[in-house]
Amino acid sequence: MRDAALPIDDRGLAYGDGLFETVLVRNGQPMLWNYHMARLEDGIERLSLPRPNFKAFDALPAQCGPGLKVLKLMVTRGSGGRGYRPPEAAGLRWRWTASTFQPTSQRWFEGVDVRCCELRLGIQPRLAGIKHLARLENVLARQEWQDDSIAEGLLCDSQDYLVEATAMNLVWSRQGRLETPLLDHSGVKGTLLSALDDAIDLHWVRERLDTLLEADAAWLINSVQGVWPIRRLVDSAGCVLKQWSLESNDTFRHAAHRQLGYPLNLGD
Amino acid sequence: MRDAALPIDDRGLAYGDGLFETVLVRNGQPMLWNYHMARLEDGIERLSLPRPNFKAFDALPAQCGPGLKVLKLMVTRGSGGRGYRPPEAAGLRWRWTASTFQPTSQRWFEGVDVRCCELRLGIQPRLAGIKHLARLENVLARQEWQDDSIAEGLLCDSQDYLVEATAMNLVWSRQGRLETPLLDHSGVKGTLLSALDDAIDLHWVRERLDTLLEADAAWLINSVQGVWPIRRLVDSAGCVLKQWSLESNDTFRHAAHRQLGYPLNLGD
Repeated sequence: MRDAALPIDDRGLAYGDGLFETVLVRNGQPMLWNYHMARLEDGIERLSLPRPNFKAFDALPAQCGPGLKVLKLMVTRGSGGRGYRPPEAAGLRWRWTASTFQPTSQRWFEGVDVRCCELRLGIQPRLAGIKHLARLENVLARQEWQDDSIAEGLLCDSQDYLVEATAMNLVWSRQGRLETPLLDHSGVKGTLLSALDDAIDLHWVRERLDTLLEADAAWLINSVQGVWPIRRLVDSAGCVLKQWSLESNDTFRHAAHRQLGYPLNLGD
Repeated sequence: MRDAALPIDDRGLAYGDGLFETVLVRNGQPMLWNYHMARLEDGIERLSLPRPNFKAFDALPAQCGPGLKVLKLMVTRGSGGRGYRPPEAAGLRWRWTASTFQPTSQRWFEGVDVRCCELRLGIQPRLAGIKHLARLENVLARQEWQDDSIAEGLLCDSQDYLVEATAMNLVWSRQGRLETPLLDHSGVKGTLLSALDDAIDLHWVRERLDTLLEADAAWLINSVQGVWPIRRLVDSAGCVLKQWSLESNDTFRHAAHRQLGYPLNLGD
């Protein structure tokens, strides 16, 4: 149901017992739809949620209307159960909204400043990769800074391995290789990252911050915002850890923006 | 507002961005109310939620009606913000419900069988102790078994240290000392546990399962169910790891049940 309220006993609200997807939709056409539905299906299996009628979801993008929109689809285990124990015959509950969206396009070409967060993500392989509703770590991390000149915050896990940014994935280039952090311990596996993994040669690595500082270039990406090259990385006190020039970033942005229908070059 | 629905953009639903308390209420009188409000206040500070009018909460137990009830109070950061970033002028949103409650009293005297969960809790000091809404780990852990003869599941963290059960705290007696796991890395600090910590000599320890197996007695406790002595501990395959006799458990149950107005002895 579109925009409909949720009962107070909904398990999505009570425990974060559900999943969501945010999909870029251009004139009723969803971007990376198969990747969004694949991640949703993976999450449904891993949480043992009731299986929905995916055909009903397929009809949603066309209902978003003209222009650029973000479709948010949320599924929860519904109501019931005894405490944390899920109900035996649960029905999946789902809701969706569509919002007008305007990407911050100057970030594609001018890059962004990024801060290292103090919060360390807990290691939880059972939840890693999927986009579940229990995202309080991300909220706490995003609360660490108010300075609007900082676009994103970089997150490591409790063993200090790089994971992601608060709402984006991280990719860097090092010695001619494109590398991205493994997302099997924590973090969300973004759909743009998955699509790029199928399209180009991407290496999944478990590395700490010192490796990122050796990179020739670094980017934050997601399926709604596109690609933001990192211009400057600062620590939590604001001290600059690394500056990158933005000269040689075009190939990676081209590959990613082709997936989203975003401009490849400034002025396109 | 009692029982009222939540809008789809509520941040409690979207991200688990909120807190809850479940309070035992007897004929309109709340048990351990000050401890529940203290934990809620601690959570509000640690999540930087807007401060509520606690006096409005104080009026709720009397509205629960006669008999034994569980009052569930839920607070969220409300709607708004840009993604994970909280809105600048958020208003706390709160809801409550009251349900008739009947404790499983035979467990107080006959004890329970408990299973070791396979899931390991992520280590997250920023969220440890408070009762936030992002409890998907507990849901996954509670899904591990369906056998109704198993009352609870024991949880360790990703470093294999004992933490709690899915919905209760753990206390054991060893060499004449009452010990309970430190809750500064993960887990929820139960209000009955906090009240006992003020009333009796309780030692906070970081120990693994092998220490529990050396205990002379062990209990699961919470402020709604009271005290369940552990009779048998099994591993995730159902093999018995330890059996305890229930002879010498009276003193601890007495101390805890006095806090809740529950019977001290069978037949009381």
